[in-house]
Amino acid sequence: MTTLVKSVQRLTFEHKLVLGYDTTMRFSQLFTKTRHEAPKDEVSKNAQLLIRGGFIHKEMAGVYSYLPLGLRVLKKIKIIIREEMNAVGGQELILTALQEQKIWEKVGRWDDEKVDVWFKTKLKNNVELGLGFTHDEQLVNLLTEYISSYRDLPLYVYQIQTKFRNELRAKSGIVRGREFVMKDLYSFNRTEEEQDEFYEKIKVSYMNVFSRCGIADRTYFTFSSGGTFSQYSNEFQTISDAGEDIIYLDANKRIAVNREIMDDKVLSDLGLRKEDLTEEKAIEVGNIFKQGTKFTDPFSMSYKDEQGEKKSVVMGGYGIGVTRLMGTVVEVLSDERGIVWPVEIAPFQYHLIELGGANPSVRERVLATYQALTEQGFEVLYDDRDESAGVKFADADLLGIPTQIIIGEKTLDEGDGIVEVKDRKSGEGGYINIQEILQS
Amino acid sequence: MTTLVKSVQRLTFEHKLVLGYDTTMRFSQLFTKTRHEAPKDEVSKNAQLLIRGGFIHKEMAGVYSYLPLGLRVLKKIKIIIREEMNAVGGQELILTALQEQKIWEKVGRWDDEKVDVWFKTKLKNNVELGLGFTHDEQLVNLLTEYISSYRDLPLYVYQIQTKFRNELRAKSGIVRGREFVMKDLYSFNRTEEEQDEFYEKIKVSYMNVFSRCGIADRTYFTFSSGGTFSQYSNEFQTISDAGEDIIYLDANKRIAVNREIMDDKVLSDLGLRKEDLTEEKAIEVGNIFKQGTKFTDPFSMSYKDEQGEKKSVVMGGYGIGVTRLMGTVVEVLSDERGIVWPVEIAPFQYHLIELGGANPSVRERVLATYQALTEQGFEVLYDDRDESAGVKFADADLLGIPTQIIIGEKTLDEGDGIVEVKDRKSGEGGYINIQEILQS
Repeated sequence: MTTLVKSVQRLTFEHKLVLGYDTTMRFSQLFTKTRHEAPKDEVSKNAQLLIRGGFIHKEMAGVYSYLPLGLRVLKKIKIIIREEMNAVGGQELILTALQEQKIWEKVGRWDDEKVDVWFKTKLKNNVELGLGFTHDEQLVNLLTEYISSYRDLPLYVYQIQTKFRNELRAKSGIVRGREFVMKDLYSFNRTEEEQDEFYEKIKVSYMNVFSRCGIADRTYFTFSSGGTFSQYSNEFQTISDAGEDIIYLDANKRIAVNREIMDDKVLSDLGLRKEDLTEEKAIEVGNIFKQGTKFTDPFSMSYKDEQGEKKSVVMGGYGIGVTRLMGTVVEVLSDERGIVWPVEIAPFQYHLIELGGANPSVRERVLATYQALTEQGFEVLYDDRDESAGVKFADADLLGIPTQIIIGEKTLDEGDGIVEVKDRKSGEGGYINIQEILQS
Repeated sequence: MTTLVKSVQRLTFEHKLVLGYDTTMRFSQLFTKTRHEAPKDEVSKNAQLLIRGGFIHKEMAGVYSYLPLGLRVLKKIKIIIREEMNAVGGQELILTALQEQKIWEKVGRWDDEKVDVWFKTKLKNNVELGLGFTHDEQLVNLLTEYISSYRDLPLYVYQIQTKFRNELRAKSGIVRGREFVMKDLYSFNRTEEEQDEFYEKIKVSYMNVFSRCGIADRTYFTFSSGGTFSQYSNEFQTISDAGEDIIYLDANKRIAVNREIMDDKVLSDLGLRKEDLTEEKAIEVGNIFKQGTKFTDPFSMSYKDEQGEKKSVVMGGYGIGVTRLMGTVVEVLSDERGIVWPVEIAPFQYHLIELGGANPSVRERVLATYQALTEQGFEVLYDDRDESAGVKFADADLLGIPTQIIIGEKTLDEGDGIVEVKDRKSGEGGYINIQEILQS
């Protein structure tokens, strides 16, 4: 039975602050309710399940609010990303949504003909502003004030920020939003060699993120179109029916090629053979890009080297769609009963299901269990509602919390300290002593 | 000497995650630099000091990015607010910036003639959208899906979110932003009596926030104009030369009246006498407002009471300008040398100043102190730069970290474990044993 007990991180008082409210919550106190049906105009699986579970609310196509359960998941993904970005030396800042024309004209990206996803708006004096769909220009402009010497490099900065993209169509739920959360990290290096070293590090760090979010096994390092300064850029593509990209995958080598650049020359270049490849639909959950001096030169971002010689700064950009990542997890890990959250990003670690709480002995046992778990710093959603077992089980499966702990009259017969546990993913279950969890 | 040691909260691993990077940092690693001069077009004291210290970067009037030091302060203010909002039963969610016309027409606030701070934008199909300057309408619209019975009430929800206001002028730094962070909490009650009870609670909770941010002694509960549903609304006004509001203050009663509503009737109503009042400039750091059914009725938000009778939901709105609060702290607590952060929102708790680090004995003592503080979970900014004592002291005073720990050749002569400490606010200082801090 001990295989039913997963190793989960205990939460401290400070962690509660990150998550925004107590680690534990009574279902009856949560204002959201589960639903049988998603809105009719919602065609994507991720949004259907997240809306039915009360994680998100649809405001309009591609624009979603995050309700308490959804915000908990989002915050946990941000914690993971922050930790991995800090581990490679990233310094966090936060730029703005409102963008000035003059900055974007430097690299020629202000024009709506050049960039077709701009949302534009106007100040009172009719000066036009844009809403940031990315932040390369703004950041480079800012950093020119701080970078002047080789001593100021290398520099790695990132933000986790809301971006706006005026997508013509937005039918993929939170996988393609018009307003969405993105992590964008930017590297500034003295040389291409120095950048190459960082590039290798960030590859590992990205796979750590996807691994901790439970989708590493189906996420592939993919070659995509480069630019003036690099032959290829790289994407992290997660195999999914909901994917809008097509990739050609060599499953053994764990390498893929985006259809956009697929040809014989590329294959030979990458040492891949057509017959080893399968065509897959995939979601781009991350991308990394060597930008050379595309942005730094137009902003005259340079540094003086040890010999006092002026040199261009070599730049790279590294994105993860944070809300898209959350949607992708739902797309690929859910089953016919609902969502299956990996433990590290689940809104709660344990779903405590009370059956027949009108029986004082049951209620007493449940409350004791709830209190013991809480005191140990576990995150628990306690279903204290006056609902049938069927409703409670269906809701628990829909919400997708990794481990269900069930206590009813039947459980009491099993003896002191015994509870029923059920693994959401495998459906495996059985009776264990609560101490196995408390001491895990 | 022990009065020099302040009681500060130790940080844990999880707290580091909230703050986004390690608790400690070397000055040489921080990409921002201090400056002697703020940009010439920046007239507000808060922005001048914050820009000079490298806390923020001006993008355009009223639009500022938050650099690592500034983001740390902002996150700490958010932690305080979250904690206080959770303590009164608030559930956190996050709504969107993009807003649909049809929702705002319900209460007649879509028209630019009615609301003169809208930023509007357009979808590809030319449908007009707004950028949220507040979120009453959107939230009520959302919650109609979840509120139907007396059992669903009371309900308190809040968000900490970026808002957009197209201000004609924005010359007050982060005190009046065109893009800024706000905490908005909304209450939904069955009766006015139930709301009144909550209103008293939130007053206390707001003063807790201002107290923890170090400005409670000059922040006053102020009566301002109400609406159809309440005679007055209330503001929290902080006395400051930078204030754009004028209030009439009874310092003994700790009550003020906003000039907007000041007349004999109001004074007699509130039991105030003209001769007890002083006229003061003040910054509105928070406001609380009983909205009655102004928003709930147009959205048909109602509930069935215990007798099955349909009733209107009574609503209230409660705002704190988060970035404005940060700016206000700078306005009122800084001195001629720079910023003076209260310990709970300071970017770091200790500023470790190394004088003459080229001397290996000095460097060794500093590193040992740095390590000991780090291991104890304190937050330390370690000035390891090769700069003169004068530059380092001036920078430390500008950045405003509450306690400076100074180690140089002179300190070594004082004996093992002895360091010099200096309180940023009072300037008081002296030698103490580092153990006094480590064991505080």
